[in-house]
Amino acid sequence: MEKMSSPPSMAAPWKQLLLSALETNKHIKHSRFIQLATVTPNGKPANRTVVFRGFFQGTDLIQINTDWRSSKIEDLKNCPFAEICWYFADSWEQFRLSGRIDIIDAAYPDLSKLKDREKSWYASSLNSRLQYLAPHPGLPRTLEEPAEGIDLDPLKGPVEAFCLLEFDAEKVDYLNLKTNERSVYTSELIGDGLKQWVVQKVHP
Amino acid sequence: MEKMSSPPSMAAPWKQLLLSALETNKHIKHSRFIQLATVTPNGKPANRTVVFRGFFQGTDLIQINTDWRSSKIEDLKNCPFAEICWYFADSWEQFRLSGRIDIIDAAYPDLSKLKDREKSWYASSLNSRLQYLAPHPGLPRTLEEPAEGIDLDPLKGPVEAFCLLEFDAEKVDYLNLKTNERSVYTSELIGDGLKQWVVQKVHP
Repeated sequence: MEKMSSPPSMAAPWKQLLLSALETNKHIKHSRFIQLATVTPNGKPANRTVVFRGFFQGTDLIQINTDWRSSKIEDLKNCPFAEICWYFADSWEQFRLSGRIDIIDAAYPDLSKLKDREKSWYASSLNSRLQYLAPHPGLPRTLEEPAEGIDLDPLKGPVEAFCLLEFDAEKVDYLNLKTNERSVYTSELIGDGLKQWVVQKVHP
Repeated sequence: MEKMSSPPSMAAPWKQLLLSALETNKHIKHSRFIQLATVTPNGKPANRTVVFRGFFQGTDLIQINTDWRSSKIEDLKNCPFAEICWYFADSWEQFRLSGRIDIIDAAYPDLSKLKDREKSWYASSLNSRLQYLAPHPGLPRTLEEPAEGIDLDPLKGPVEAFCLLEFDAEKVDYLNLKTNERSVYTSELIGDGLKQWVVQKVHP
């Protein structure tokens, strides 16, 4: 077992591995599609594809956009834990990132996080933004729906339903199917919310 | 809402949709890779890539091979529910299949299921089979490991660690990102373990 006692200002030791995989697989259009598992309020697993929107600037926190009305919000309010499964089809690498999610909605009490939410809104395409003005996801489609065009001012800030998720990894299980190598990165808090990472090679 | 009151001998209404997606995406080498979410004994979500091995003959039950020593077995013994997320990269279709998993290990009390396990073993490549003879997955790699070649008789039946999972869908959430259509298939038991499926179009 190797202790990674890098200074807290440095990136987590698995981050460079993930960025390399993203670089190697960037020609695949869905290489930023990840599967996010949560636990429903009745204790069952839920799993869906979401889009990796990058890391919060200068951190190891993963950004995901979502609709406040989607069922994953209900799941996360009940149980903040999530596991991301990220399979890179070209390099045959899998990352399983296990951690907690912070929901940054319109009522979030921290101004700098609200700024992040705004930034992520403006970084989205107009088409993506329009989804948050569409009818409630998961509710029945009625036959008589007005096919009205929704107008969206490109300069207008995030709508109520737009939500930013901040995923904070606590453990990362990395598997390389080409080399048949597997490493598990685990973290422990060393005070002030800072993490120390430990990496261990395990059997695949 | 449309009731699908097909005779019980017929396939579930979502099965043809899934088979079509498999056909459309068959040129993609990882189109049979799916993400399986479970709940760990401490109530957290877990998520990993597994391989779809087909449907059990004449049924809607999905086959997955796994190692009895992997952590998903512990998860499933504690909570038999799972959700499969299956994203088809070429046709932009997502299936979220929610249901229960039956673990068919060497000690399974039903002979016909043990036959299925045996069939699935022989249907696997020799390389795949060798994995089940490898050291315990997830345990630390030691420095002094003998690099011995393991001999496997191709005619020999399944080893102890080889396990067949039988996934029985109770709900299927289908999303087509090209047409922006989403349908939810839910089932109810109508006696004798038979299911009736209901399909509803919902907002994506």
